[in-house]
Amino acid sequence: MLPRGRPRALGAAALLLLLLLLIGFLLLGGDPECERLEPDGRAGDLGCPRCPLTPRVPSDGRLRGASALDGDPMAGLWDHNRSACDPWPQLPPKCELLHVAIVCAGHNSSRDVITLVKSLLFYRKNPLHLHLVTDAVARNILETLFRTWMVPALGVSFYHADQLKPQISWIPNKHYSGLYGLMKLVLPGILPPGLARVIVLDTDVTFASDIAELWALFAYFSDKQVIGLVENQSDWYLGNLWKNHRPWPALGRGFNTGVILLWLDRLRQVGWEQMWTLTAQRELLTLAATSLADQDIFNAVIKEHPELVQPLPCVWNVQLSDHTRAEHCYSEAADLKVIHWNSPKKVRVKNKHAGSFRNFYLTFLGYDGNLLRRELFGCPSQTLPEAEQLQRALAQLDEEDACFEFRQQQLTVHRVHITFLPHKPPPPRPHDITLVAQLSMDRLQMLEVLCRHWPGPMSLALYLTDAEAQQFLHFVEASPVLSARQDVAYHVVYREGPLYPVNQLRNVALAQALTPYVFLSDIDFLPAYSLYDYLRASIEQLELGSRRKAALVVPAFETLRYRFTFPSSKAELLALLDSGLLYTFRYHEWPQGHAPTDYARWREAQAPYRVQWAADYEPYVVVPRDCPRYDPRFVGFGWNKVAHIVELDVQEFELLVLPEAFTIHLPHAPSLDISRFRSSSTYRDCLQALKEEFHQDLSRRYGAAALKYLTALQQPRSPA
Amino acid sequence: MLPRGRPRALGAAALLLLLLLLIGFLLLGGDPECERLEPDGRAGDLGCPRCPLTPRVPSDGRLRGASALDGDPMAGLWDHNRSACDPWPQLPPKCELLHVAIVCAGHNSSRDVITLVKSLLFYRKNPLHLHLVTDAVARNILETLFRTWMVPALGVSFYHADQLKPQISWIPNKHYSGLYGLMKLVLPGILPPGLARVIVLDTDVTFASDIAELWALFAYFSDKQVIGLVENQSDWYLGNLWKNHRPWPALGRGFNTGVILLWLDRLRQVGWEQMWTLTAQRELLTLAATSLADQDIFNAVIKEHPELVQPLPCVWNVQLSDHTRAEHCYSEAADLKVIHWNSPKKVRVKNKHAGSFRNFYLTFLGYDGNLLRRELFGCPSQTLPEAEQLQRALAQLDEEDACFEFRQQQLTVHRVHITFLPHKPPPPRPHDITLVAQLSMDRLQMLEVLCRHWPGPMSLALYLTDAEAQQFLHFVEASPVLSARQDVAYHVVYREGPLYPVNQLRNVALAQALTPYVFLSDIDFLPAYSLYDYLRASIEQLELGSRRKAALVVPAFETLRYRFTFPSSKAELLALLDSGLLYTFRYHEWPQGHAPTDYARWREAQAPYRVQWAADYEPYVVVPRDCPRYDPRFVGFGWNKVAHIVELDVQEFELLVLPEAFTIHLPHAPSLDISRFRSSSTYRDCLQALKEEFHQDLSRRYGAAALKYLTALQQPRSPA
Repeated sequence: MLPRGRPRALGAAALLLLLLLLIGFLLLGGDPECERLEPDGRAGDLGCPRCPLTPRVPSDGRLRGASALDGDPMAGLWDHNRSACDPWPQLPPKCELLHVAIVCAGHNSSRDVITLVKSLLFYRKNPLHLHLVTDAVARNILETLFRTWMVPALGVSFYHADQLKPQISWIPNKHYSGLYGLMKLVLPGILPPGLARVIVLDTDVTFASDIAELWALFAYFSDKQVIGLVENQSDWYLGNLWKNHRPWPALGRGFNTGVILLWLDRLRQVGWEQMWTLTAQRELLTLAATSLADQDIFNAVIKEHPELVQPLPCVWNVQLSDHTRAEHCYSEAADLKVIHWNSPKKVRVKNKHAGSFRNFYLTFLGYDGNLLRRELFGCPSQTLPEAEQLQRALAQLDEEDACFEFRQQQLTVHRVHITFLPHKPPPPRPHDITLVAQLSMDRLQMLEVLCRHWPGPMSLALYLTDAEAQQFLHFVEASPVLSARQDVAYHVVYREGPLYPVNQLRNVALAQALTPYVFLSDIDFLPAYSLYDYLRASIEQLELGSRRKAALVVPAFETLRYRFTFPSSKAELLALLDSGLLYTFRYHEWPQGHAPTDYARWREAQAPYRVQWAADYEPYVVVPRDCPRYDPRFVGFGWNKVAHIVELDVQEFELLVLPEAFTIHLPHAPSLDISRFRSSSTYRDCLQALKEEFHQDLSRRYGAAALKYLTALQQPRSPA
Repeated sequence: MLPRGRPRALGAAALLLLLLLLIGFLLLGGDPECERLEPDGRAGDLGCPRCPLTPRVPSDGRLRGASALDGDPMAGLWDHNRSACDPWPQLPPKCELLHVAIVCAGHNSSRDVITLVKSLLFYRKNPLHLHLVTDAVARNILETLFRTWMVPALGVSFYHADQLKPQISWIPNKHYSGLYGLMKLVLPGILPPGLARVIVLDTDVTFASDIAELWALFAYFSDKQVIGLVENQSDWYLGNLWKNHRPWPALGRGFNTGVILLWLDRLRQVGWEQMWTLTAQRELLTLAATSLADQDIFNAVIKEHPELVQPLPCVWNVQLSDHTRAEHCYSEAADLKVIHWNSPKKVRVKNKHAGSFRNFYLTFLGYDGNLLRRELFGCPSQTLPEAEQLQRALAQLDEEDACFEFRQQQLTVHRVHITFLPHKPPPPRPHDITLVAQLSMDRLQMLEVLCRHWPGPMSLALYLTDAEAQQFLHFVEASPVLSARQDVAYHVVYREGPLYPVNQLRNVALAQALTPYVFLSDIDFLPAYSLYDYLRASIEQLELGSRRKAALVVPAFETLRYRFTFPSSKAELLALLDSGLLYTFRYHEWPQGHAPTDYARWREAQAPYRVQWAADYEPYVVVPRDCPRYDPRFVGFGWNKVAHIVELDVQEFELLVLPEAFTIHLPHAPSLDISRFRSSSTYRDCLQALKEEFHQDLSRRYGAAALKYLTALQQPRSPA
């Protein structure tokens, strides 16, 4: 790819550099007035374009023009008028890989980091590699997310945060980020030795520009400089915020570590680890703890070794805390590059322009991450093997096929964000059961009442857009019932494609269940209040774990009324059934779905009884967690559960109906998807084709044992 | 604001320019090899950065390096490697106003233009002024949209497309854009004489960068150049696409007019109007018609006067038609600036990378336009007076007030897109009636069945996010029932804030009703099949237009069942009522809402009868279009219709119940908003406060006549 013109280009570049230095001298170095501030405290405007050609922190450690940090925190460093300076930085070549390191721990930071990454990816034009230092929770979430996201030209490596703790846990720290905040200090030691440079970001920053422009600033580091930082936009380190406020030492207002350019190999050369350790140990002799985590230590080191730091233009870290002085930066700059929500209040912070800034953040919060699966045209081998395989499979589909939408939907890999909200895994208990279900936005109102009916763990897959995921978050936060439940795990599967991927959703929820048993339910069903306890007792009594391979059937009923008093016992349920206020489930439209449960026998039953599989049977069952998965080929509506019960039966699960168990379906308006397809004969034909393919696969896998299902299928019936 | 350092800056700039010219000479002019193409047809890479320092079309009209247009359509013009060239163009000063002209006609183009404008606003950092040449439909839509959008630092002017038709209607044209495509030719004559430069855009382009960078290219125009254009990325003008394909004359592949830089004052000076008119007249002697509208004529003029054109880098108009050669452009460029969907298939076009490009487009299609209401920090007086007033009112709200959310929601100005889909106004008929209602996404499935029940005009307000509006569009397109109805007007009101602005929505739908009468309904109601005809007959019989000031009451019923056969007559309805399958509306929870309708009398009634207002009465009524508006203070749920009936009563509308009219409410799951607030006592307290304020206003406006409503209110009742 190297053009043969390169030597000439290098010559031209060298000359260019020379000329730039000349101009730089003329504009900056040659004119002492340019160091002076205007009477209003701002740096001279077009007259003194402060282009970053020379380091502005001289070796004496004092910023030139001492008033810089007293008047305007941004002045004295760089000028932000793009017409003077912005054209200068040379962007890295088109396909150069840029490296980013982020420390991330827990459920909430994992959500934050995704918003940050979306903003990065939106503006980036280079391949990126993310180095993520994570705890177990964040790793679990982010590994799944990036694997399913399949963004071209994005690499991700994980580093164990827990293994780093010993290196920093000796430092007392009062910052809200806890120990994790301090981990930025040890990055030079843990990132690959071959990695020369990295940009380090806090999870609470949002990009409003191409990170390559930030990377380009490495070019302005002098030989001695190893850390690029933006000055603090608060008065914290001046130590005059309140009486007896004694901050860690810093140069003037100090630097903010939300955005750091780290020259890793030079840091290793100068003995960074020893350097910061000694400084921290010394300061801790007189200071009780760090208040701002790594930032205190970075600043203390810089105060001692000012030659290490290259100050960066303020636009690369616009700090929006409550009493921020950032306005001095952005009222000058046309172009904000990175916004930093560095208040514990985050985007709820209040300051003059918080609303406008929040819009940047909200843009990426609600941005459809699927749209970031865009190629970087012209860079070699940027697609992942899985993505390439997928692309090939999709390309092989026949667009003229009437069932094209089905085929396409089956192949779709949905982005998955497991445990979207804070979640505490249930303590290990031998007969514990997780309720497994899936839903979309139109069923959110079921969650509260479901929580009242099922006091045990739940694993729920939600099929949402990125924007809906935020609405869902607010919905849970606003609900005392839902907020109180830490044993409900919500897994967001991001929407893509026209058909509802019902079985893929069920499989996501099922894969994340952490108890030995699962109750495979649907979101419109409310279990009997006693069901959770009763099922656990039944599992124990029936010795399901060790002796029997069985699926416990929970008989299903339905009400067609909104106003409805839930029966508190089997006796009450039977009374409602007799009075016509309840029916057995889908009694009117699809009786074969539950007929094998034998409701007549259930009425009288005192003990579990075995029933036989029959065509189209689709009961709600309790099975071990490692049960067969749902067949993901069934997308949209119809036959998705039936196929799963066939799979259980062919694997010789006994079907045992529990005499005291019941669950009741509540009425709801038909979903949009159902309405859309109920009337379509193509849809029914495609479903028929899927069923036939399912049976072919079944025969392949189970041989003669699968024959009975095929025979049953060939009897004419209408699909669900 | 001018800093005193300016003279020095000018000096520095002059020197800089000199140096740049020197470098330019070294890199370009001084090296003839740079004009040569690489063997693969691409321009030399870093070795020959083709920076736009000199015009590349010499006065002989032939592009230098004739192979340029034969091999790679992009080569020979500009190089796209940003590391060589992009830093050079000087962006316009931070607060300089940039002008954009767009021709837009009809409902579909109005939607397109909004997506384009969203992309413009997303990246822009300068104030913008849009010059919109529109037909009556587009003007109506876009005036409302921009007035309610209230984007800071965005001006909009409208120009009557219909008045321009005589200037171009003599030109035979076969392009899908019709006559409107040709209007770009007459822009120099109709834009304000003081306007020197403008960027002209087709509605089917999407920006992926700051338009200021495009504006900056004006700086490279020579004195003679007046039009900046990107070369065509198809072989159309080569005339070899098929046998007997005879395109209009053009230089090589010609230029595409989806993105044009027009130097207006120079165009006027060179006598543009006469120039293009003469060329067109002459070509039309031998060519039957233009195939590509204005583009054919621009190209013919340029072929004759090549000195007029400044070629622009291909990235500013990446043309994605079916057989586009655009890949040559973007595989070289890291940075795509403008994407042009210049196929009649638009974003459904198929080419190698269409999917990736579509993501850019989809980004802005679904982008929440409210987020673009962001200030440009540091530019003077950019906010509109209405917006400023609104900001003041919002700032005066007390955040500690328990009803703060209500107050804030009442003040919110929602962005409104009227007639979102193609709509044909009903022909003027003296007794015609429009059904008026409002809905959100969760009620879309009502639309089809409502269309079957109401064959007349409808005006519906939909409360949606930008992304939901697209889902809605697809929903309508997929429905044969809805697609067939051109008399249903859909008005999108964009979501903002936590409370449902029910009365603001009703007022939007009401304001857009075009018939003399309106039936004020709710989306969950299905009118009797005969109601539309019956109401028109009743209006005529009762001489409502001239003689009586009356509101016709349509009695309301409800079913609690999903499976339900709609009664085809009053007799059938009464039978269902007697058998308990139907109830009078809200019989169980809120009988006072409809009790005054006097259902017992209605059973027997043969003629319309008058009823008296009573507290909490909220019937569904037919009234003249100019009836009182709904009170927008009632947001969320409760008392919103009641207040409107009070207003009708105090204005002395007779309440006449129609003996054969009925409408039936269908069951639905409680909406999220209702669930969220039903349990909140604060919510009920705030509603009470709103009611009291409503009555105070009523007293102010109507004096003693309003007393009876206040008395009624003071009797203790629970709110709806």
